[in-house]
Amino acid sequence: MEIIVFHGSTRVHGNTEFLAHQAVPKEKGTHIYLRDYTVSPILDQRHDVNGFDPNEDSHQWLVDQMLAHEIIVFATPIYWYSMSGPMKTFIDRWSQILRDPAYPHFREALSKKKVYLIAVGGDTPTIKGLPLVQQFNYICQFYKMSFEGYVIGKASKPGEILQDKPALKAASLLIKEEAR
Amino acid sequence: MEIIVFHGSTRVHGNTEFLAHQAVPKEKGTHIYLRDYTVSPILDQRHDVNGFDPNEDSHQWLVDQMLAHEIIVFATPIYWYSMSGPMKTFIDRWSQILRDPAYPHFREALSKKKVYLIAVGGDTPTIKGLPLVQQFNYICQFYKMSFEGYVIGKASKPGEILQDKPALKAASLLIKEEAR
Amino acid sequence: MEIIVFHGSTRVHGNTEFLAHQAVPKEKGTHIYLRDYTVSPILDQRHDVNGFDPNEDSHQWLVDQMLAHEIIVFATPIYWYSMSGPMKTFIDRWSQILRDPAYPHFREALSKKKVYLIAVGGDTPTIKGLPLVQQFNYICQFYKMSFEGYVIGKASKPGEILQDKPALKAASLLIKEEAR
Amino acid sequence: MEIIVFHGSTRVHGNTEFLAHQAVPKEKGTHIYLRDYTVSPILDQRHDVNGFDPNEDSHQWLVDQMLAHEIIVFATPIYWYSMSGPMKTFIDRWSQILRDPAYPHFREALSKKKVYLIAVGGDTPTIKGLPLVQQFNYICQFYKMSFEGYVIGKASKPGEILQDKPALKAASLLIKEEAR
Repeated sequence: MEIIVFHGSTRVHGNTEFLAHQAVPKEKGTHIYLRDYTVSPILDQRHDVNGFDPNEDSHQWLVDQMLAHEIIVFATPIYWYSMSGPMKTFIDRWSQILRDPAYPHFREALSKKKVYLIAVGGDTPTIKGLPLVQQFNYICQFYKMSFEGYVIGKASKPGEILQDKPALKAASLLIKEEAR
Repeated sequence: MEIIVFHGSTRVHGNTEFLAHQAVPKEKGTHIYLRDYTVSPILDQRHDVNGFDPNEDSHQWLVDQMLAHEIIVFATPIYWYSMSGPMKTFIDRWSQILRDPAYPHFREALSKKKVYLIAVGGDTPTIKGLPLVQQFNYICQFYKMSFEGYVIGKASKPGEILQDKPALKAASLLIKEEAR
Repeated sequence: MEIIVFHGSTRVHGNTEFLAHQAVPKEKGTHIYLRDYTVSPILDQRHDVNGFDPNEDSHQWLVDQMLAHEIIVFATPIYWYSMSGPMKTFIDRWSQILRDPAYPHFREALSKKKVYLIAVGGDTPTIKGLPLVQQFNYICQFYKMSFEGYVIGKASKPGEILQDKPALKAASLLIKEEAR
Repeated sequence: MEIIVFHGSTRVHGNTEFLAHQAVPKEKGTHIYLRDYTVSPILDQRHDVNGFDPNEDSHQWLVDQMLAHEIIVFATPIYWYSMSGPMKTFIDRWSQILRDPAYPHFREALSKKKVYLIAVGGDTPTIKGLPLVQQFNYICQFYKMSFEGYVIGKASKPGEILQDKPALKAASLLIKEEAR
């Protein structure tokens, strides 16, 4: 399948998950729930003589899944105006992949990906979520990935996303047709 | 002592740490290195009937230290255009403190704090670090903390911060005199 | 009528105008084309003993129209990543209204308004137009106006907006029903 | 001389002007006060068959001055969270220069310039002025100009900038030595 969705929520069946499924229904893509995997926080050893110590966790497997798809959707609840911890840890560890001899073509491979962002927050997210959008844009710029679009939904309590009809509609239109 | 500095770097004696010490020399404040403590990632149980499960880690102790000071300095390296994982985990867990019966006055206590941010990154940080500044501003707004100022330094390799003389100077002027 | 749309484009029948009409069809609101009126640039006399010199232009009439409506839509093409000159001049001159004895209740009157923004640009506007959105948010905050939402469209050449279907859809859903 | 400063304030001897002179003392650069020149607002004729109508104003002369220097400093008061009207009009009209046969090498010429920004505002400018910084960054990106740095000062009433000692210091360090 072409599309992979990384779900960053720590809550099952949350608002972000629902909105992401509007963009990519279950059967239309690979759905990865980061909360189901163990990923250790990055330990900055970029400047150590021996580089990074290897980690015995799921990060490489997750990266392999990502590289096997053309379109990457990051679906994250907004925690304190930025991405969730599991999402951040997943991305932070890319610094380690960049120096991993097992992934000599990581940057080049990512440069061919299309990226979408879906984010949901409770505190005026269409304004206070914009720095998060800008950060994803910078991440895409770094890897020369094409940042194709984003949807920001407003919801806090379980199920509230159902009331954000413009976001639901925008999510259903998010992935460009030619990309499917 | 009045000032507490939370260091978010995972590297010992890094650039961010150096810049933070320009603002708050060792003997002028309490310095906490988050890498020395264990803080579990947040598990979003805000909407669970029984609320959050208790954690057996250092988070409450860290929060207690924070509350015991008047001025809080967050010193974080910029990882992928936002704060470091340990810093994010520390702040994410405040959501849990907000619902902890042991901390009935958490918001009110924070509303009297003055906050400063020190951030160091390698990829045009004075531009690409601005979303991070905006996010800290939103966090301060939420808790009605006074966001007093920030310094962004440019450095990647160990020791490079020594070349960013404007940032070193700005850090040395950061904490307003009347606040000391 | 309840809704007023200020069009900031200097081009007749441009993309921004088209998108704005998706949100507010001609017969559903008052449409003001700022290019049809003369508004002098602000001369900063806030600190002059005698205050501002009076202007013989259309600004007061435009402000009167604005105050007579409940919902204000600002529709501007994105020129160099911010609002168009005529839109900026219109808003800049509010500083003069704030000190005009003929408008003692200007701030209070604005504090009851709902505001929407429609912006169209050619250079990755959903990212590079975000600072413009943030600025409108700050303007609304200053006057305690409620910033209800925004749509950013992508178009440069005449008619191109027709291809931005998500923006057309979002514009048609922009004004919340309860507000109409 | 190498450095040119464009002053966007409409007030003589204002705070922005003072801060800009900390960065570039009178005798160290060419100082242009945009308020002393007439520049017509842009009329968007990019898509007209005959292109732009010529303007009988000072814009071309101002552009010629800009092109004759290596380092361009934009010094603008913050009006409603973005640049002043005269500064915006000056930059908006570059769209016309881009299509002017008299300036076939405008983009290429600009791509060799170094750019600095100095901005002063009264309403928490180090936060609410950040979208303005981001916009200048996008302008520089468009023309491939090198955006070398910025200083944001806090001041509203005449003379208040004298109290923003960190900004005064930062301005004095702004222009990198190797660039002088």
